[in-house]
Amino acid sequence: MDESSPLSLTPIGVMASDYPDKFGVPRQPGLVEAARGVVSLVAPYDAPLAVDGITAYSHLWLSFVFDRSPEIWRPRVRPPRLGGNTRVGVFATRSTHRPNRLGLSVVRLLDVATSSRPALPPWELAGMAGMRPARTHLLIGGHDLVAGTPIVDIKPYLPWADACGEANADLAPTPPSRLVVQWEPVAERVVTARADVAALRALIEQVLAQDPRPAYRRGDADRVYGVALRDVDVRFVVEAGEADEGPGVVRVVEIVPGASQPPM
Amino acid sequence: MDESSPLSLTPIGVMASDYPDKFGVPRQPGLVEAARGVVSLVAPYDAPLAVDGITAYSHLWLSFVFDRSPEIWRPRVRPPRLGGNTRVGVFATRSTHRPNRLGLSVVRLLDVATSSRPALPPWELAGMAGMRPARTHLLIGGHDLVAGTPIVDIKPYLPWADACGEANADLAPTPPSRLVVQWEPVAERVVTARADVAALRALIEQVLAQDPRPAYRRGDADRVYGVALRDVDVRFVVEAGEADEGPGVVRVVEIVPGASQPPM
Repeated sequence: MDESSPLSLTPIGVMASDYPDKFGVPRQPGLVEAARGVVSLVAPYDAPLAVDGITAYSHLWLSFVFDRSPEIWRPRVRPPRLGGNTRVGVFATRSTHRPNRLGLSVVRLLDVATSSRPALPPWELAGMAGMRPARTHLLIGGHDLVAGTPIVDIKPYLPWADACGEANADLAPTPPSRLVVQWEPVAERVVTARADVAALRALIEQVLAQDPRPAYRRGDADRVYGVALRDVDVRFVVEAGEADEGPGVVRVVEIVPGASQPPM
Repeated sequence: MDESSPLSLTPIGVMASDYPDKFGVPRQPGLVEAARGVVSLVAPYDAPLAVDGITAYSHLWLSFVFDRSPEIWRPRVRPPRLGGNTRVGVFATRSTHRPNRLGLSVVRLLDVATSSRPALPPWELAGMAGMRPARTHLLIGGHDLVAGTPIVDIKPYLPWADACGEANADLAPTPPSRLVVQWEPVAERVVTARADVAALRALIEQVLAQDPRPAYRRGDADRVYGVALRDVDVRFVVEAGEADEGPGVVRVVEIVPGASQPPM
């Protein structure tokens, strides 16, 4: 092969997601188990036969393209995980700013809907950004993909090949620490009135516990941030976000309809 | 994004490998721990800084292209794991015959060599197919990539995100069963005389234990097969390969210089 010749890559699917925007998306899959998404296969890859047997697997690998990241890369990046100031080699990170912009996430497979078996529960899809008609959909959970992300491959997860329990990862040895989430009554009332109350509450709490603020803003307490989740904008304040002060607190101050949504 | 527009993919590296050819390559990574390979980064992705910090990780994900597979796909494939006759959806398999021909393997990172730190032990590289000069090399183990395979991404393995120990995989729940390997004295003498005797013996035994014969030939006992490993051709016979007869036996009958190698 001539390694200077580019290969081409065609999307086989596109994401609908509880994450309408990049901001707030967790930095790895599995950190927000409440997140729901739908992979809608696109023609000519949307034949229901192409997913025949896939429900034998509880987890799937999604390969995708970080299409919201710029097509520029540098040999070193400053990952948020290291505080946003330390530079490491791009191939020693999962940064979105990388050659080929390829992403990789293991997700939970929750359901399959095809033209012959349309079975997705409607409450799972309410408020999800980017839903579209398709012959074949996969409902997934625990993902970290923004709505509209192009999917370029789907593979089954094989625990005996993919689970390396003894692996060392000294630059990121454990999941990020979590903030404690507290609710203002006015915000809680909005969530309690929703049909998807349990799912939306879990989604908001798990996303905010990750501290979605950019690393360079971590000292910027009392500022009100907004994160788009499903069809709402969640306004929050981080009251103590530094690791050396014990677990920080994130407070949900308001929940309003999302930018492109009708009033609630 | 317009999902009908192809994205382009540029190789960031190319493999040198103990596997000169497709035949004999195990069907998942980790099954042949003795396998060694080298990812040689290609310009402009070969800056030593691009792998700065990578030795903090014991395992890496390689995304690559099955460039020896035809660029045709069908909604269903017949995986060897299911005996070669049962059809399942292509996205329910890791078949190489898939849209975009993307491969994904977790491998062990053994060493890094850059222009400022050229440290690969020569005995590891002796006989490896496809070695080339480069500014930056990664020595890897336990892989399943053929020499010349284009690498399109390298990411660290994060056990807290990637190890789903509780995952179900009912179509392929356990590693494939292994054959018992026996040696003809004439073959054993050739291996014993080599400088890389321990590594080569382990490689041969682990590869043959996988039963590299094509699924449709599993009934074809006593036929002599040849598999290329490092710089040798290994001739073998499978004496009882059916699962219902207990563990089969594979016998190493002869080891000769590889096709493109000088005489030993």
